[in-house]
Amino acid sequence: MNPVKPLEKIRAILRRKKADAFLVTQPENRRYLSGYTAIDHSISESSGVLLIPVAGIPLLLTDSRYYLQACKEANGYKVILVRTSLVSSIKQVLPQLGVRRLLFESHYVLHSTAVKLEELGRQQNMETVPVHGMVEKLRTIKTPGEVEKIRKAVALNERVFQEIYGVLAPGQSEKEVAVAIESAMMLKGADGPAFPTIVASGVNAAGPHAVPTDKIIKEGETITIDMGLKLNGYCSDMTRTVVLGRTDKRTREILTLVRRAQLSALKTIRAGILASEADRAARKIINEAGFGRYFGHGLGHGVGLAVHEAPYLNRKRRNQLRAGMVVTVEPGIYIPGWGGVRLENMVVVEEGGCRNLNRDTTFLDL
Amino acid sequence: MNPVKPLEKIRAILRRKKADAFLVTQPENRRYLSGYTAIDHSISESSGVLLIPVAGIPLLLTDSRYYLQACKEANGYKVILVRTSLVSSIKQVLPQLGVRRLLFESHYVLHSTAVKLEELGRQQNMETVPVHGMVEKLRTIKTPGEVEKIRKAVALNERVFQEIYGVLAPGQSEKEVAVAIESAMMLKGADGPAFPTIVASGVNAAGPHAVPTDKIIKEGETITIDMGLKLNGYCSDMTRTVVLGRTDKRTREILTLVRRAQLSALKTIRAGILASEADRAARKIINEAGFGRYFGHGLGHGVGLAVHEAPYLNRKRRNQLRAGMVVTVEPGIYIPGWGGVRLENMVVVEEGGCRNLNRDTTFLDL
Repeated sequence: MNPVKPLEKIRAILRRKKADAFLVTQPENRRYLSGYTAIDHSISESSGVLLIPVAGIPLLLTDSRYYLQACKEANGYKVILVRTSLVSSIKQVLPQLGVRRLLFESHYVLHSTAVKLEELGRQQNMETVPVHGMVEKLRTIKTPGEVEKIRKAVALNERVFQEIYGVLAPGQSEKEVAVAIESAMMLKGADGPAFPTIVASGVNAAGPHAVPTDKIIKEGETITIDMGLKLNGYCSDMTRTVVLGRTDKRTREILTLVRRAQLSALKTIRAGILASEADRAARKIINEAGFGRYFGHGLGHGVGLAVHEAPYLNRKRRNQLRAGMVVTVEPGIYIPGWGGVRLENMVVVEEGGCRNLNRDTTFLDL
Repeated sequence: MNPVKPLEKIRAILRRKKADAFLVTQPENRRYLSGYTAIDHSISESSGVLLIPVAGIPLLLTDSRYYLQACKEANGYKVILVRTSLVSSIKQVLPQLGVRRLLFESHYVLHSTAVKLEELGRQQNMETVPVHGMVEKLRTIKTPGEVEKIRKAVALNERVFQEIYGVLAPGQSEKEVAVAIESAMMLKGADGPAFPTIVASGVNAAGPHAVPTDKIIKEGETITIDMGLKLNGYCSDMTRTVVLGRTDKRTREILTLVRRAQLSALKTIRAGILASEADRAARKIINEAGFGRYFGHGLGHGVGLAVHEAPYLNRKRRNQLRAGMVVTVEPGIYIPGWGGVRLENMVVVEEGGCRNLNRDTTFLDL
């Protein structure tokens, strides 16, 4: 039995919503549905959109910079060359498709573009209907092929980490280490970093989103390294907190506590539980040790074509985890004036449990 | 005489438009008006917005990750901590400001956010008015202080280029060179690259937006290096096309032609001319030599807090250049199957001429 392709699932939703076509502007959604890999550097500099009719050949509209790439990559799509503007090209092709009801991605279309689309709708007697997260919801459940791509990204991430950790030494600056990590990612074949690498040492790690500074790394302090890369479009995301030289008692206690919280979540996660239950499993351990107020963020998030995507695992989320979801498990403790500890692995949710995608055990086995 | 501050200019526009307040969502505009330096990684992950009433203390709304940074950086602003969502915080503060007519940036607000704002407007009997490029227009004219910051970014860019060019050798891959450039930027104190560095050799340079590959650089072929960095928020953008070893006759002819086109534009650019006239000055030289069809892009663009910003210099733009604008001058020739040559400097437009911000003359003096 062939699995149902994402494009067919989208068309089933279009039929259900009685829509004739769907305009896809979100870059990862565009890639997911078409295989077209171009990257957008900002929402104002789009490298193309999909226009998917409920039946017939789907279209990819892009300009001369990306035309050849789109033809090569977007199998099954007809590529339309945009000469002046995306909206004017959409205007030209819509009548041929006979679209009366067009869905568009409200969460990734600029207001100024939506105004033009709505104007076009009035001219062509076509209803424009905003939708939210329709493709993102499909993207939460990974196929075995996608899980394998993510696993390879995680494996490359670990090779880069181990190379840099192997030469990590007092006297290096946070920024030097971060630059070395991102260079190694590129040279080992990653598409690039999935997000700006965090290297935060000592008190600098007291915030979960520290930016690497010129601070020199010293013996005995915690060093939080949070790094992710993209490989063939799929992301990894991993955090290790390490210490050079002797680890003092308090640091060891906090590291052990965070690891225990992570293990508790890993034991809890399986298809069918609520996202909030996974969060609670980790938070309970940290709360009971009296550190609850220092764990200010959620337990994790989905990872796939985007490094932060649904599902989100935190106290409030009542959505069920389902088999094939890939999520991070990343409890942390951040103490102002002292520093921070975070440990982050990625797992695949399965029936009855979850499968760790990480092999690296640096500082996890204290 | 004190120069009029951007915030005061914006308030004058608000009075003219009979608006009570302006919601600023575009990240560079936010920095320009407030000094707050946080970076947004995507439009869906905002690090804050400004809410500027026509009189009284302007507000910066941000969440706990950025609160301390905002308080430190945004002088004269009151920082409001966002607990649940930006829109709900805006909803809370608007009545206190008595806003009846709110301007928002249509070109940098998601449709989904605009829908919520408009809903808020209906609830609070407040008109929401989309505007386009209001702050961007102010940003086109740089103060002497801004020009100095840009000059420093250009100078650092040249130091990085010269370091890497000094060790450029056959056998290195395009990607290795690009990674070395971006590492050197970081280690020399840049905020980061302003855009993904282009290193394109031989036929790979036949497109203006090539991505560095594993291709090994050889003697005798052209190598186009297009690199930019941010330093204290301001951008540089520079392109050099170089050859290792002997430069053959055809390459030398094309390089000389592109340089002549650049010099012609540099001689033409001054306050008062149309952007299209600058483009024409360069294009005429390339057209007359019979290479017109190989110069497919515009002559240049403004550079400031963003690496691509108004004004745009191309055949169609009828806007006048004005003193204090900073623009790139980057003619190029791209021949399918052969390769490409582009040369790019940055200049400040002045009365009666323009001032080159670049000192580096690598391969410009053939």
